[in-house]
Amino acid sequence: MSDAVVLGLDVGGSSVKYRLASATPSEGIPEALAQGTVSTPKHDPVAGLAAIARDVTALHRLVAVVVGIPGLVDEASGTVLRSANLPALDGLALGPALSAELEVPVGVINDGRAAAVAEARWGAGSRERDVFTLALGTGIAGSHIVDGRVVDGAHGIAGELGHVVVEPSGARCACGQRGCLETVIGAPALRRAWNRAGGHGSPKDLLSAYEAGDARAARIIERGAAALADAILTLLALVDPGVIVIGGGLASAPHRIVERAAALVAERATFHRVPAIVPAILGKWAGAVGAVSEARELAGCVVGASAG
Amino acid sequence: MSDAVVLGLDVGGSSVKYRLASATPSEGIPEALAQGTVSTPKHDPVAGLAAIARDVTALHRLVAVVVGIPGLVDEASGTVLRSANLPALDGLALGPALSAELEVPVGVINDGRAAAVAEARWGAGSRERDVFTLALGTGIAGSHIVDGRVVDGAHGIAGELGHVVVEPSGARCACGQRGCLETVIGAPALRRAWNRAGGHGSPKDLLSAYEAGDARAARIIERGAAALADAILTLLALVDPGVIVIGGGLASAPHRIVERAAALVAERATFHRVPAIVPAILGKWAGAVGAVSEARELAGCVVGASAG
Ligand SMILES: [Zn+2]
Ligand SMILES: [Zn+2]
Repeated sequence: MSDAVVLGLDVGGSSVKYRLASATPSEGIPEALAQGTVSTPKHDPVAGLAAIARDVTALHRLVAVVVGIPGLVDEASGTVLRSANLPALDGLALGPALSAELEVPVGVINDGRAAAVAEARWGAGSRERDVFTLALGTGIAGSHIVDGRVVDGAHGIAGELGHVVVEPSGARCACGQRGCLETVIGAPALRRAWNRAGGHGSPKDLLSAYEAGDARAARIIERGAAALADAILTLLALVDPGVIVIGGGLASAPHRIVERAAALVAERATFHRVPAIVPAILGKWAGAVGAVSEARELAGCVVGASAG
Repeated sequence: MSDAVVLGLDVGGSSVKYRLASATPSEGIPEALAQGTVSTPKHDPVAGLAAIARDVTALHRLVAVVVGIPGLVDEASGTVLRSANLPALDGLALGPALSAELEVPVGVINDGRAAAVAEARWGAGSRERDVFTLALGTGIAGSHIVDGRVVDGAHGIAGELGHVVVEPSGARCACGQRGCLETVIGAPALRRAWNRAGGHGSPKDLLSAYEAGDARAARIIERGAAALADAILTLLALVDPGVIVIGGGLASAPHRIVERAAALVAERATFHRVPAIVPAILGKWAGAVGAVSEARELAGCVVGASAG
């Protein structure tokens, strides 16, 4: 059993990150026996991913694989329901297909969820049992993780903090509602607000202007912080997490928005218990680490609660 | 073991409901070996509740007791932190004290939570694994129950739908925020709105006026329904329950508000998965049933997940 390994794949639009680890549970983060990046196979993704798995595990006895996918996934059946960046995967029963190729169990998971699980189990959330992770970017993805497991609701869509309404008569969201948090602090919303205010460029330029004392930039950051604070107060009332871990965009405007929002939450909280709001720490390997972690579970190894 | 019994007590301001059941797990609702109501012992609650337990279980071998209390409870230590209706219990380590009297394990639980657990396990939520219960009354209490167990957050305060802000510049709430759902559809808020509109009497009279076609009453019901719908949409985004069970006040104005809110939720939902919104069915015995159910768990019997 000592040489049995599990493989985590984090499939992106242009590259696949892989991480290989022992199948045996560990107290700390699953140590990488091998880790790296290869090009995403676009044409025949099943054959391509199987080839990657065979290459990477040639010297080992592979016992389970988990694949993180940027898109909507049905974990129970291992099917990719929709993937904007990788249309070749759309509707594909990727888990069963890869499993047939590799002759080991293969799980499929949303890449953001994989990263969230990793942060909760091994990263910035590892000292709390009840963790809420938030990834700020084009969209805003949230995951509620208790004892290392995602609490994802009856239909798998819990944690959508980005679609909590914070400005009832605000802009129309991609989801169809008005004034979702995403319409205020999603990257495209920040870019639009900044350009409408006469600024130029991306949320990064908005941040530079803010740091330089630009009053228009300050108004946009302040409005974003107020919206995020409102959404977080609602989260505290309904979910009451022990820590909020925020990843994505931390080199950009959202970083300042998060800082200011944390101050507003502390100021406005009444009965709420205000948790620490901390940055994610696993960086770009979080997805692969989460996939490895889930692959260990799939292999029948017990991690999880004791790791929370 | 066949004659081992557990006792559930539901302690109210003026009376205590008791329910006695076999300690052995059951598929359905724990059948009552005995059930009834006695006066609440106000002077010496520990001696009084112990006497009730001894009376009720005289012919049986008692193995565990759970007591539901109207107030803030620390379940881990069995302490009543605060009870508005029963000041004699304030700060009392009721669990250990009763356990010393009765020589069996004694758990203490919030009465609303006991009722919520009962509705989720055995009542209106029993066909779903992921249940959100809502009790409408003076306050609005919510509980999220997954596989028969309360998901109560890092500090035990999750589920506070009544303190989700729905009218940001609205009335001041008892919690200190402005515009919490409770400030719109809590019973005192409905009474105030009705009286301010020129109506007389309680939310029940508001309902009668509404049924008779009164336009002022209709505006209050509509505003309440819109507020409740907004809060529920936020709940669907963050928690994604499989069913919402609503108890309390169903003979009164909130009943109409819930009906109308359910219609608005269906109308306004976009990405959300809209669950059934159904009335609680266990009625006034829900708290005692929940206490019995928890007492079985305390006795080491396995119910719970398989009962969900
Ligand atoms: Zn939205
Ligand atoms: Zn409030």
